[in-house]
Amino acid sequence: MKAAIQPAGLTRLCVHTVTTKPWGVEEAAGRYAAAGVKGITVWRQALDGRDAGAVGGMLRAHGLEVVSLCRGGFFAAPDEAGRQRAIDDNLAAIGEAEALGAPLLVLVCGAVPGLPLEEARGQIRGGIEAVLPAAVEAGVRLAIEPLHPMYADDRSAINTLAQANEVAEAIGSEFVGVAVDVYHLWWDPDLEREIQRCARSGSLLAFHVCDWKTPTVDLLNDRGLMGEGCIPLRQIRSWVEAAGFRGFNEVEIFSERYWAQDQQEFLERIVEAYQKYV
Amino acid sequence: MKAAIQPAGLTRLCVHTVTTKPWGVEEAAGRYAAAGVKGITVWRQALDGRDAGAVGGMLRAHGLEVVSLCRGGFFAAPDEAGRQRAIDDNLAAIGEAEALGAPLLVLVCGAVPGLPLEEARGQIRGGIEAVLPAAVEAGVRLAIEPLHPMYADDRSAINTLAQANEVAEAIGSEFVGVAVDVYHLWWDPDLEREIQRCARSGSLLAFHVCDWKTPTVDLLNDRGLMGEGCIPLRQIRSWVEAAGFRGFNEVEIFSERYWAQDQQEFLERIVEAYQKYV
Repeated sequence: MKAAIQPAGLTRLCVHTVTTKPWGVEEAAGRYAAAGVKGITVWRQALDGRDAGAVGGMLRAHGLEVVSLCRGGFFAAPDEAGRQRAIDDNLAAIGEAEALGAPLLVLVCGAVPGLPLEEARGQIRGGIEAVLPAAVEAGVRLAIEPLHPMYADDRSAINTLAQANEVAEAIGSEFVGVAVDVYHLWWDPDLEREIQRCARSGSLLAFHVCDWKTPTVDLLNDRGLMGEGCIPLRQIRSWVEAAGFRGFNEVEIFSERYWAQDQQEFLERIVEAYQKYV
Repeated sequence: MKAAIQPAGLTRLCVHTVTTKPWGVEEAAGRYAAAGVKGITVWRQALDGRDAGAVGGMLRAHGLEVVSLCRGGFFAAPDEAGRQRAIDDNLAAIGEAEALGAPLLVLVCGAVPGLPLEEARGQIRGGIEAVLPAAVEAGVRLAIEPLHPMYADDRSAINTLAQANEVAEAIGSEFVGVAVDVYHLWWDPDLEREIQRCARSGSLLAFHVCDWKTPTVDLLNDRGLMGEGCIPLRQIRSWVEAAGFRGFNEVEIFSERYWAQDQQEFLERIVEAYQKYV
């Protein structure tokens, strides 16, 4: 048995707005702060019809630290016009992150069914390099988030932390790193080694938690609350911290089941599960 | 662009009985043979209430080659009694394969939610080693089939071909090899290299085909017919053959959608899709 790992503490708890999707960002901010949550990651949908700068001020007035903006990416496309649209959209996202006061934009890198994964990866690298000067100018870092291999068809051609590390290292900018999400990566026998690899170089920029349920009945929106599944959350957090990561532990749960429930009760369960299992 | 790869030809087409699950094995045998299918892989359920030796004779009388028996495995268990039950069941499966005249038993190796994957892998290796003498005695080889990472919770702690190769090499018997199923492995950036690794040593024992649909609406039973999805089937077959594999191309499709349709029409579509896409 490994030595006991201490709970992370609420000071490092961040919740993604999508986790409590039924709430508008204003209600989420008030409820999160009241529950003791210290950080918030904002999904772009939560900014719809709002001024990003004003939202950022509102969040900070609630005592919340804006951890990141989710999500940019989707750089792979069947044609040049599609790739340019993706670049334009990522430039817009970088602008939103800057206005919001978010130091980080998380990238779901993209894939196109039938487009060879190697080609998609080349397009992803090209897309990141195309928006990198704007990110540097805005002071917004970019985190490549490897997605579970079950999303290799149409969401991400980058499916392991090793691949994300390779792209980040190839680009070689302190403004490009990786996001580790336990849902996508828990099964990978190379996970601990790859966490050490990115954390040592300072390119581990975000850490996302939830759980993998058995059975999982939907590929997208059936994530579990921490403790409901089989992911060794505390062990993975220990790897991340052993490698020097001191950022937020971000709760990102897509769940039709939880979205249909009372969101305040769900938030209370998140805080409890975070203290018990993360 | 790669040089064109020729279609595989019907002489190497095998169908798994589970693909046409509504048919009993007798009906499947007659229909497969009439459609020009040359090989059959028998799922153990298809033997329920039947004498395996008699089924084997019936299949050969139809001109079908018995390619393998599916499936053994599930060696990981929460306790010793469970692991012993798994070993007993695999010994029974080896006996069925021998009686059937199947030279190969395919292993879905097992996982238990909450059991660390490393421990499950140790139990898998232990289980295979426990049944290996019986397999050698029976003349039945064992194929470790790595399963897609989305099955790492409760079906297999072996999720990449690299992991399967490692276990097979560690055991080091010509009676233990691997099965490559495109559905589980197509996303893996190391796939070509790992195919070369096992095929060179003669441990690539089976090649399974189907397709990955977008969207996939069920984690288990929504596989696509070849050509319906994004898997580069012909490219992967070219890797397998470049490495020396000359066995059957086995069509293994779990699909509630296809099982609900007319199975004869489905079989005709399989033969057509095989010639066009594999």
